[in-house]
Amino acid sequence: MPTFNPVKPGEKIDLSKLDPADSSFFEEGKKEGKKQLTKLTEKLEILQELFYAHGKHRLLIVLQAMDTGGKDGVIRHVFEGVNPQGVSVANFKVPTPEELSHDYLWRIHKQTPSAGEIVIFNRSHYEDVLVVRVKNMVDKHVWSRRFDQINAFEKMLSEEGTIILKFFLHISKDEQKQRLQERLDDPSKHWKFNPGDLKDRALWDEYMHAYEDVLSRTSTAWAPWYIIPSDRKWLRSLIIADILVKTLEGLNMTLPDRTEELSHITIE
Amino acid sequence: MPTFNPVKPGEKIDLSKLDPADSSFFEEGKKEGKKQLTKLTEKLEILQELFYAHGKHRLLIVLQAMDTGGKDGVIRHVFEGVNPQGVSVANFKVPTPEELSHDYLWRIHKQTPSAGEIVIFNRSHYEDVLVVRVKNMVDKHVWSRRFDQINAFEKMLSEEGTIILKFFLHISKDEQKQRLQERLDDPSKHWKFNPGDLKDRALWDEYMHAYEDVLSRTSTAWAPWYIIPSDRKWLRSLIIADILVKTLEGLNMTLPDRTEELSHITIE
Repeated sequence: MPTFNPVKPGEKIDLSKLDPADSSFFEEGKKEGKKQLTKLTEKLEILQELFYAHGKHRLLIVLQAMDTGGKDGVIRHVFEGVNPQGVSVANFKVPTPEELSHDYLWRIHKQTPSAGEIVIFNRSHYEDVLVVRVKNMVDKHVWSRRFDQINAFEKMLSEEGTIILKFFLHISKDEQKQRLQERLDDPSKHWKFNPGDLKDRALWDEYMHAYEDVLSRTSTAWAPWYIIPSDRKWLRSLIIADILVKTLEGLNMTLPDRTEELSHITIE
Repeated sequence: MPTFNPVKPGEKIDLSKLDPADSSFFEEGKKEGKKQLTKLTEKLEILQELFYAHGKHRLLIVLQAMDTGGKDGVIRHVFEGVNPQGVSVANFKVPTPEELSHDYLWRIHKQTPSAGEIVIFNRSHYEDVLVVRVKNMVDKHVWSRRFDQINAFEKMLSEEGTIILKFFLHISKDEQKQRLQERLDDPSKHWKFNPGDLKDRALWDEYMHAYEDVLSRTSTAWAPWYIIPSDRKWLRSLIIADILVKTLEGLNMTLPDRTEELSHITIE
């Protein structure tokens, strides 16, 4: 598969010009795509085990999207085969009073991965320049300086040994409508329906604008943003799996050779 | 008392030119100094209560010094009257394996103060550019970029509402000798004597050089370093208490006026 490129630092982003159903990355269709995805998740399983055993790097994956964008789906379909030991998901919901009494990166930093660990952020510190901005929860002078703060924070993490990959799951407003309707129509999906999502939907354009700023200002060499066309679920998962596999393979991890050391051991 | 000034950002520091017994800040002698200290700690008690009730700011105090420099003494003598609710001390010793498996700021960030809280760091993230540097625990390219990381981290804390004051307790090598000898001579102080301290003492010049870089490179408008002449214990505590009181008074905190609201309440 070709390489899927991240946003270039500072690149102007117009999300309305990027087709959420774009399939140019993989044109062989859904059936073949799902086959490839299975192959990639099998590779990922092996690579994650190596990552854990190797124990030198940390991997932080940030997932951001509008509601129904597919964050849960990515976690399920890309990571399903992976050993839960060494992989964890951090969900960032509305901050608790304790979290609110600290700076917004406090709860984030706590959940960053340790050596050999992969942590997936289901929402993240980016909410502090997205929902917080769109809903005017803090003044502009407060959220606007957070771009630099976030870049500095992620740079430190990166310099100290954390690999960071950030995925924006880009869906169309029509696709969201359809997915929300499915949740309404199917009683087994009712638990997923949150009337509050409709309020965010009404602010769609404001969110897109806020996302454009995030993508343009916080995609860096050390923590790139990938805009994933996500109207097709299989394609979205396929692209992400491919980026993950390529990133992990690029680490050229090998297990320490302990043959010599262990050859002297006799178990009585 | 006159204002005790912090290190100017970027100012070249030669610690050998700064007298640890300098008493020019307060020339009325020990007896009068102790009287003043009592007055200041009484003020501090009231100000801390107001700080807690006000609940808008956070205060982070960083204490760094060579062994016997007086970090414990400052905590005891400056904060003794203060309500432990709302004030806590974070001790940073040799990192645990869990702490080591994260970036060096991970354990630090976790312990930063919440709203209305004062946290005193007894040692801090600065050890990661001091002992770690002097003892070659990481490569130079790793520790040298930490100055920028630390400045960015503290800037974020400050912009998000944390007041940061950093105190380097400056003692002479002779004074340390005397204090270590006291610990050896007095069985009731034996518990404080750690033979490892002698290894650090042997590296005195290397530590002074590392401290000079820290003071010069990480004293910022948002997180200033104060070099406290600390050979005289009472003077050291007096200067720090004075800086704290002036900082807290400068916040112009007032309690919310609830007279109107509460006037309608009848307790049956």
